[in-house]
Amino acid sequence: MPEYPTALGAADRETITLLGHDLAKDVMGEVGFGELAYWLATQRRPTPGQTRVFEAVLAALADHGYTPTAIVTRLTYLSAPDSIQGALAAGLLGGGSRFLGVTEDTGRFLHDVVSALDTVPTGDTGWDQIALDTVKAQRAIGQFVPGLGHHVHKDGDPRTPRLMTIAREEGLFGPHLSLFEAIGRMHPRVLGKTLPLNGAGVCGAALADLDLPIELLRGFALLARTAGLIGQLAEELRHPVANEIFLSVDRNNKPVPPDPA
Amino acid sequence: MPEYPTALGAADRETITLLGHDLAKDVMGEVGFGELAYWLATQRRPTPGQTRVFEAVLAALADHGYTPTAIVTRLTYLSAPDSIQGALAAGLLGGGSRFLGVTEDTGRFLHDVVSALDTVPTGDTGWDQIALDTVKAQRAIGQFVPGLGHHVHKDGDPRTPRLMTIAREEGLFGPHLSLFEAIGRMHPRVLGKTLPLNGAGVCGAALADLDLPIELLRGFALLARTAGLIGQLAEELRHPVANEIFLSVDRNNKPVPPDPA
Amino acid sequence: MPEYPTALGAADRETITLLGHDLAKDVMGEVGFGELAYWLATQRRPTPGQTRVFEAVLAALADHGYTPTAIVTRLTYLSAPDSIQGALAAGLLGGGSRFLGVTEDTGRFLHDVVSALDTVPTGDTGWDQIALDTVKAQRAIGQFVPGLGHHVHKDGDPRTPRLMTIAREEGLFGPHLSLFEAIGRMHPRVLGKTLPLNGAGVCGAALADLDLPIELLRGFALLARTAGLIGQLAEELRHPVANEIFLSVDRNNKPVPPDPA
Amino acid sequence: MPEYPTALGAADRETITLLGHDLAKDVMGEVGFGELAYWLATQRRPTPGQTRVFEAVLAALADHGYTPTAIVTRLTYLSAPDSIQGALAAGLLGGGSRFLGVTEDTGRFLHDVVSALDTVPTGDTGWDQIALDTVKAQRAIGQFVPGLGHHVHKDGDPRTPRLMTIAREEGLFGPHLSLFEAIGRMHPRVLGKTLPLNGAGVCGAALADLDLPIELLRGFALLARTAGLIGQLAEELRHPVANEIFLSVDRNNKPVPPDPA
Repeated sequence: MPEYPTALGAADRETITLLGHDLAKDVMGEVGFGELAYWLATQRRPTPGQTRVFEAVLAALADHGYTPTAIVTRLTYLSAPDSIQGALAAGLLGGGSRFLGVTEDTGRFLHDVVSALDTVPTGDTGWDQIALDTVKAQRAIGQFVPGLGHHVHKDGDPRTPRLMTIAREEGLFGPHLSLFEAIGRMHPRVLGKTLPLNGAGVCGAALADLDLPIELLRGFALLARTAGLIGQLAEELRHPVANEIFLSVDRNNKPVPPDPA
Repeated sequence: MPEYPTALGAADRETITLLGHDLAKDVMGEVGFGELAYWLATQRRPTPGQTRVFEAVLAALADHGYTPTAIVTRLTYLSAPDSIQGALAAGLLGGGSRFLGVTEDTGRFLHDVVSALDTVPTGDTGWDQIALDTVKAQRAIGQFVPGLGHHVHKDGDPRTPRLMTIAREEGLFGPHLSLFEAIGRMHPRVLGKTLPLNGAGVCGAALADLDLPIELLRGFALLARTAGLIGQLAEELRHPVANEIFLSVDRNNKPVPPDPA
Repeated sequence: MPEYPTALGAADRETITLLGHDLAKDVMGEVGFGELAYWLATQRRPTPGQTRVFEAVLAALADHGYTPTAIVTRLTYLSAPDSIQGALAAGLLGGGSRFLGVTEDTGRFLHDVVSALDTVPTGDTGWDQIALDTVKAQRAIGQFVPGLGHHVHKDGDPRTPRLMTIAREEGLFGPHLSLFEAIGRMHPRVLGKTLPLNGAGVCGAALADLDLPIELLRGFALLARTAGLIGQLAEELRHPVANEIFLSVDRNNKPVPPDPA
Repeated sequence: MPEYPTALGAADRETITLLGHDLAKDVMGEVGFGELAYWLATQRRPTPGQTRVFEAVLAALADHGYTPTAIVTRLTYLSAPDSIQGALAAGLLGGGSRFLGVTEDTGRFLHDVVSALDTVPTGDTGWDQIALDTVKAQRAIGQFVPGLGHHVHKDGDPRTPRLMTIAREEGLFGPHLSLFEAIGRMHPRVLGKTLPLNGAGVCGAALADLDLPIELLRGFALLARTAGLIGQLAEELRHPVANEIFLSVDRNNKPVPPDPA
């Protein structure tokens, strides 16, 4: 018979444990939700500073108004109000490469550069050189630098300096944020124009500096978004717009003849 | 052209707001994730006490080991590792009437009783009478009382007294928890046996006492579970069991002849 | 070690079987897809007549243009183009009580009436009496008759007579369709107005007369819709509208102050 | 006001059209479900031969017993029996790169080679040369040839010759199948061992020869699987195993200490 080890939840008749701690005594009422999410993902309890940076990232990503994911959750709830889980799951399914992907792509990109370094620079000059090489290398292969540019915040994404400040306050401004910041300084020399450092991108850098698993960066964006989608559903319940959205599409449909592929 | 009002996320070239606040300045680094989730769902900022009770509920519901939802997330990741969002969404889809439903059912049940009261009792004696009537009424129509009983914690679910204590400490032990507690005292007189008050059920009572929208109680259980499922995925990445689970089923399949319906 | 019996797919080194038949020799190239879906759901091979009625139902339900499910699939693809499965799954999640529910609700409602009959009428007169009683009983408890009425096809849904004709041609016009047709004749006497028999409703009646499992009627609507959603994705790939839909919502967002619950 | 063109479903008060045809008169009762799915995906009505090959592919992919997707659908139904759409969607979410991906990967791989050819060979000798070059090129970059090899059917997947025969019978054995067959003949010269041509892979080749959109090959595998998952749910309803599967995991859980990342 196979056995399935786990350090997460376990229970017997009297006790429930989570991550080796007594859930009722040591976790409930003692551990915040952001702290718990970090702990579950790493099996290591975060410091207050790590929790603060992590929760700042979650706040930055929780809700951006009428994104496709928000619209999808509202429309699915309109169509299947009996299944809250379906409405949330449908919204999360939009959390892929395009809309939520910047966080993951940036974190992974920076991580690849950082983990290939022989020595980690100790000051801006060193990071600037690495950033210059990195941007040039991307340009040489015709690729964008993930996290560079934003379609709305063209003069700067307000989340970016704020998250950097918080990370500095907590002593968690590590190599990923350092490289990302240096890319912000150096890319105009290569690209001939100044692009903002994207707020979703800086979140990826900060998560990577928190030593969270790179493979799951998208997962943290989805966790943040789950809270946002619950907010969307709560607002939809009291001030519904989904039917109006549906009708604005359906009423403006225009039948055209088939276009055989 | 229709307009779509929202108090959630909004952005212009310079600023991002969330719930009417400047996201970068007033939310990031200032608001914890549990606090933010509550705020998004109610559009009202919780007090520290409300946040503590809310986060205690989320901790109670985050992960229970190898539940169907956890197994589903691991198997979906095994099968489609390119889509973290799919693995999380699949797991959440198990958050329906049976496994995560106790929280919602209990909260809703208590809410129906409480909101039908002409006057809210001020002490245990009053609640005991209401509880007695409530349990009798359910028995008369052949229905269970939601939140009563647990298949493992037959002598008491450790989460229940702990969450009641936390709610009392924060001055948030309201009518739903009072009624639930009274049901715990009175049901043996009607049912002839003593059942434990379920930990998922007490969470529903506590959420209702926090004035969270009853229609979304299942949503908060799902939010908690999202953090748990990320923990499951993180553990699966480093100590995989999903293929073993799959094989334990597949290798023990037993071909049988069709059984025409 | 538990064993898991199944009559569905099985394989050994040389052979693959499905429903006890050699998949390569006896199923591939021999069995149509509608026929196969019916067979899988009942473990009994349908007659050509059953297949024709079943496929007529699937055609009736496959696509209705810009439904919420179609919009959701397109928006999810826009947002996460790397995950076709996510876009399809998100669309299917709208297949709940409201939009796809009529088929299921009607089939189940008729089934409840039919299975409670002591004797099944042999002619219209008998069915008319049962229909009259049924509509009266619903009215008495303040409930609608599922499948009665349509918000667009107010003078009659063209799918309804057509599906009835097909079922008659195939000798499969059974008690569920008979009762549904009789409800169409008799309800004006009770309700004082004439409503159309809904095309999604008649599909539920026809599926019930095909002896398909009542618990899965929604599943057949979802199967039909899967084909429709693939059509939506294929059209989106060549003539995209999802970004336009997204922008039509996002650009018309109207920030409002929070409305605390 | 934007307009949203579509050639799929449309309706006015009297009529419903699909792909420019009267749904009730010209589609229901006249068009099989496989035929309709093909038509929806291409906006071009398939010939009977195209339909037969397409439906043979769908049959080949519909169900493979206790795959992760089947287990996921059963467990999700166990956990949330109120939401058939959730159980099906959860199962489909496993249809990603690993388990259902062979069909897509093979079709795409062959398509890339075929569409880069200056001239299409007219006989086996020509294809053999291309196949040889192709297998060598993959080996040179350290990549597998998609569709080559099978973990169970090591001496040959019975679906492969059968689908090739059907395609030949229908005059639809085109360049993708020709190349795939040639890879089957030539790869031992390069790899030094003989691997079977995978049945899921040959499906990808056949779909590509049917001129179906390469971007949606995974979608057709998912359509086939939807029918299979309905079969799994139907069997679960009558002969449940999901709880047994759940318990076989849960009861064999082994609590271990956290392993901090």
